[in-house]
Amino acid sequence: MFKLTFLGTSSGVPTRERNVSALALECVANAHAKRNTWLLIDCGEGTQHQLMKSHLSPNDLSAILITHTHGDHCYGLGGLLASLGMNRRTKPLTLIAPKAIVKLLDTLTIVSELQFNYPIDFIAIEDNLERELPLDLGDNHRIFIRLHTLSHRIASFGFEIVQILDKDKILTGKLKTDNIANKYWHEILKADTPLSLDDNIINPHDYKVHAQNTTKIVIAGDNDTPSLLTQAVKDCHALVHEATYTDDVMQKIVSKPAEQGGFDPKHSSAKMVAQFAHACHVPMLILTHFSARYAPFDDETAKQPNMGHIRKEVESYYDGKLVLAKDFLQVVVGLDAINEPNKIKNL
Amino acid sequence: MFKLTFLGTSSGVPTRERNVSALALECVANAHAKRNTWLLIDCGEGTQHQLMKSHLSPNDLSAILITHTHGDHCYGLGGLLASLGMNRRTKPLTLIAPKAIVKLLDTLTIVSELQFNYPIDFIAIEDNLERELPLDLGDNHRIFIRLHTLSHRIASFGFEIVQILDKDKILTGKLKTDNIANKYWHEILKADTPLSLDDNIINPHDYKVHAQNTTKIVIAGDNDTPSLLTQAVKDCHALVHEATYTDDVMQKIVSKPAEQGGFDPKHSSAKMVAQFAHACHVPMLILTHFSARYAPFDDETAKQPNMGHIRKEVESYYDGKLVLAKDFLQVVVGLDAINEPNKIKNL
Repeated sequence: MFKLTFLGTSSGVPTRERNVSALALECVANAHAKRNTWLLIDCGEGTQHQLMKSHLSPNDLSAILITHTHGDHCYGLGGLLASLGMNRRTKPLTLIAPKAIVKLLDTLTIVSELQFNYPIDFIAIEDNLERELPLDLGDNHRIFIRLHTLSHRIASFGFEIVQILDKDKILTGKLKTDNIANKYWHEILKADTPLSLDDNIINPHDYKVHAQNTTKIVIAGDNDTPSLLTQAVKDCHALVHEATYTDDVMQKIVSKPAEQGGFDPKHSSAKMVAQFAHACHVPMLILTHFSARYAPFDDETAKQPNMGHIRKEVESYYDGKLVLAKDFLQVVVGLDAINEPNKIKNL
Repeated sequence: MFKLTFLGTSSGVPTRERNVSALALECVANAHAKRNTWLLIDCGEGTQHQLMKSHLSPNDLSAILITHTHGDHCYGLGGLLASLGMNRRTKPLTLIAPKAIVKLLDTLTIVSELQFNYPIDFIAIEDNLERELPLDLGDNHRIFIRLHTLSHRIASFGFEIVQILDKDKILTGKLKTDNIANKYWHEILKADTPLSLDDNIINPHDYKVHAQNTTKIVIAGDNDTPSLLTQAVKDCHALVHEATYTDDVMQKIVSKPAEQGGFDPKHSSAKMVAQFAHACHVPMLILTHFSARYAPFDDETAKQPNMGHIRKEVESYYDGKLVLAKDFLQVVVGLDAINEPNKIKNL
């Protein structure tokens, strides 16, 4: 299961309530663990400041993934990497990003005389499209990431992230039939070789089956063509996608003459993403990256643009579980071993 | 007179209480004006976020000065310049910075496809050392900036900033002697050509003298040799300088073997700056850029390093007006037309 913590949900510029893009994805193998390995998706300016206000430890950060190189998605990277070094990080960090990020880091290294005392394993997205990139988190806990090309003003990508938990499941019916006392069940679950219980020797593998728990989430960068993710969202538990504008606002921006500030921002409207998620039967749609014009309150009847307008637009086209992200919102995605349902928590 | 607002007072990494370096300097021509032209000195990551929490308007920002290119002093520059553009700035911005900043901005422009819709007048510090750089703020309000070389691990500079206000001062004694009614005094102060008052024609220049109001502040970047500013601080109203450590902490860092993390940080201790300010008769010493190890409370008897230890160390060597900066602290420097005393305000 995954636990998401939104660290920045504004588009382009920070606002008082929303920082620019960043999202922490904890890979949860055990629902009761206090600390989980986590990935950071995008790193807008001020992400390290947001992290200080969260429960996340930089020591548990395993990889940073950058969707695209617009400033609101990557200008916090230099500061975060520098601070990890100043906090004496030594363990490696995986960085999955567009190639242009190498140019940015090279320049920061020269201009600021930055030195990293930990290895950075750089994976260029452009060289690994549609491949499965494995991340081994240990303890029968595997993640793989598949990279998808999106459509935006600059090269932009989406991440299909799959968690596979290998678990043995105990066969309680058979244990009861064979009169094996309840007190031995945990031992049997953990054992790999024959066990001597009371007067019997048993093979633990007779009383358990191997099971795999798979959770899939798709996290997209800026994108004006949601259908590029049709294959990626197949059987996913949740999709995180931008919805920068409502449809009427986007139409106004696109149709205005260039000399009056009109342009094609190459973003998605809430309607576009909702229609796509509906057509692909996405069970949970999490929208983020809202234009600063949308006030954080929810009142669809108010004249001032606000989250109620985004919500109402989505609800006209999509009837799955909808989440409108805000900074420090936590969302649990996927079913864990004890069948805890998806849940949402405001920090 | 100048009004300072500290936007970041931590060294190296942000803390919960202190952001990394940035300082706003308002150039006040009229103590009653609601808005003043201001300069930004250094722009660590998150400076634009701090500005949102302050009273300062980006529209009134006239120039950005960068002391040196370590990340904690310049990683917020790209985001701030991009946001100024997105907020439709069209008026020019002066950028006074080390040449390496051009390389940083060039890279950001390429990597993020940044476009600025306002002119940036770049002044390379290395080509203008010890020269007077004028900034014309209009309305008989002139500023000049002189650039000084400091000593740090990377090229670092200090700014001597002088404000000159040209004002006419009315000669009240002579007006009374000549029986000129009080109601005409304001008109006489403003007039440049002869005035017809009741039955007399008078020359307004007979009743006023030209006066200049000068305020000087010195703002230094990271520096391990305060005496490099000996000429700069002559007749200054205030010096803003880093005091990253107390002397004992600095000695420990420098004397530790390299394999145990010892190095020469090339910073100043509170003692070094205090001794320098005392020797040069600096009337007001404002310290900033404190190591994150110093907790923000003031208790010189506590074991935990805190601001009380910095204060106590300075007070042993310096008996002028001492200010220990913190984020959003405001300090007024210089005497204005109505002789308002220097003042400090916690926002």
